[in-house]
Amino acid sequence: MTKRAHNFCAGPAALPTAVLERAQAEMLDWQGKGLSVMEMSHRSDEYVAIAEKAEQDLRDLLNVPNDYKVLFLQGGASQQFAEIPLNLLPEDGVADYIDTGIWSKKAIEEGRRYGNVNVAASAKPYDYFAIPGQNEWQLSKDAAYLHYASNETIGGLQFDWTPSVGDVPLVVDMSSDILSRPVDVSQFGLIYAGAQKNIGPSGLVVAIVRDDLLGRARSVCPTMLNYKIAADNGSMYNTPATYSWYLSGLVFEWLKEQGGVEAMEKRNRAKKDLLYKAIDASDFYTNPIAINARSWMNVPFRLADEKLDKPFLAGAEARGLLNLKGHRSVGGMRASIYNATGLDAVEALVAYMAEFEKEHG
Amino acid sequence: MTKRAHNFCAGPAALPTAVLERAQAEMLDWQGKGLSVMEMSHRSDEYVAIAEKAEQDLRDLLNVPNDYKVLFLQGGASQQFAEIPLNLLPEDGVADYIDTGIWSKKAIEEGRRYGNVNVAASAKPYDYFAIPGQNEWQLSKDAAYLHYASNETIGGLQFDWTPSVGDVPLVVDMSSDILSRPVDVSQFGLIYAGAQKNIGPSGLVVAIVRDDLLGRARSVCPTMLNYKIAADNGSMYNTPATYSWYLSGLVFEWLKEQGGVEAMEKRNRAKKDLLYKAIDASDFYTNPIAINARSWMNVPFRLADEKLDKPFLAGAEARGLLNLKGHRSVGGMRASIYNATGLDAVEALVAYMAEFEKEHG
Repeated sequence: MTKRAHNFCAGPAALPTAVLERAQAEMLDWQGKGLSVMEMSHRSDEYVAIAEKAEQDLRDLLNVPNDYKVLFLQGGASQQFAEIPLNLLPEDGVADYIDTGIWSKKAIEEGRRYGNVNVAASAKPYDYFAIPGQNEWQLSKDAAYLHYASNETIGGLQFDWTPSVGDVPLVVDMSSDILSRPVDVSQFGLIYAGAQKNIGPSGLVVAIVRDDLLGRARSVCPTMLNYKIAADNGSMYNTPATYSWYLSGLVFEWLKEQGGVEAMEKRNRAKKDLLYKAIDASDFYTNPIAINARSWMNVPFRLADEKLDKPFLAGAEARGLLNLKGHRSVGGMRASIYNATGLDAVEALVAYMAEFEKEHG
Repeated sequence: MTKRAHNFCAGPAALPTAVLERAQAEMLDWQGKGLSVMEMSHRSDEYVAIAEKAEQDLRDLLNVPNDYKVLFLQGGASQQFAEIPLNLLPEDGVADYIDTGIWSKKAIEEGRRYGNVNVAASAKPYDYFAIPGQNEWQLSKDAAYLHYASNETIGGLQFDWTPSVGDVPLVVDMSSDILSRPVDVSQFGLIYAGAQKNIGPSGLVVAIVRDDLLGRARSVCPTMLNYKIAADNGSMYNTPATYSWYLSGLVFEWLKEQGGVEAMEKRNRAKKDLLYKAIDASDFYTNPIAINARSWMNVPFRLADEKLDKPFLAGAEARGLLNLKGHRSVGGMRASIYNATGLDAVEALVAYMAEFEKEHG
């Protein structure tokens, strides 16, 4: 029997075992057709059906309104950092950005290469441990859009509210929390997410864009980075990342079987509650993030003595608890607990943490 | 036992069965680590070893000189059509392009969006059935580069020679014939190829770029499209398409086991000889391409009466000969016979063609 570890990797992250089993079964011969999904023409009836079903399932899961296009793109969220201003920021316009950590800062840096960027608020004065409330934001008049990251994968900082900026299109990087709980898509102009946390394998980006934002691309925008061209061609202007799209579709199917994002919210709440409770109940482990900004998906924590980091990680690995090392820019530990990570994994982690503390605390 | 069809798809194309079997076996648990390759951090020791081995195997297969970087990118060849001028064409410069069909024309169109493009030669006067010799080319003085497509996937037109343009960097789209036979990399400034024909799954692009061409990107070039940034970060500026990279590595391993590109050349020559011979020996089937420009990889052919196209395709499919329909812009038939398509597949096709001709000819 296959041994499956508890994988707390921040991304590329764990996928549901059931999804991998199905992909494995279909690898050489999809539904008796004698070929793998990755060997199919993207224009074949079979593949188009796979792609359309994936899109429809995602629409169902997030209740995507009809006036939004769902795009399956490439290049990761980092490519979106350029794609967004190239599509949405006029040369003489201004865009508002909120800085809550490493990923939103990267978006800001790339945005500045294409025009006027106003950092309307920053978590820096709070050492990136809290998110400034909207009453503290310095918004521009007539911003082309407001950009923020709903969850900072590295810092472990997550919005538990949605900004309200009137007619200004809200653009959100949901790479690490999309599909983890319900969201009202109609509040956004553009939602985008790299697939490799809650959707599927890396190399795929999902973008959900409101129709009125299509067709504004600048003349220097590469054809492949133009949302309208992607939308007009059903994300098949050229060959898309067909196998990654298919795998994402399997994840969407699995999510529906599990009860959708409402069920995920319940499960994810139970997971993060268990883990934060274990951290807070101990003086040995700490998480510095303001309670209302703690991420449900990425839980960074420190040990009382960083000399114990190595033995902690070694012991974890010996128990099949993998990839708990914090990001190199932050240090300490980080447990990423996306949809595919079960409560059993968190229970195993919490049990190990207690055991380790008893031994070394 | 798994049934595997003979798949003549132009792309995404057939992959070696042995590669898919290995991927299948490793799908849930890579080498006893308890996780899939697609669930690994791209910065983990395990994944970095997978990625580096893939690069080294590709370098070995193509004898890539040390002063070239091998990049694993995203967005398909179509994204390269913008990436190339954004990286290599100064705003006041000129680039030469050769037009031999649909793909090179797409590169020309996108190139024009970024500057001065000189179409130095076109196959149009030959109805795209032949490639104009270099004596007919109108090259610019001091071109930033010369771009051509070594093989036109749709037209079935392939260079059997390498242009000689002195110090002008030669930029070639090898999407559909890379690794099909030996090539002298040192003659090129940049070789690029979408993976989905001879390398691996779609969503990955391999670029082999000479060091002196790095660092010339224009200010409007998105960070993710900048070759130097990709090179400086080992194609991991952000999360690459990890699973596609791994699968490509399995293909490279398989190619080495088969005897490398020299063995592929032998096998591919036998395959195309068999198929063109069958076409030429019959008045029922025709291929219009000049003998010296006939593609080894994509063999378009027509039936004497196009009313027979449908029955031909139906009969083929019933025999497990899949995806023989020609591109919608061309009509007729097309057999794509990349590395992963064995001589047995071509033999089965040729036998069916004879049978069909006997019945309907």
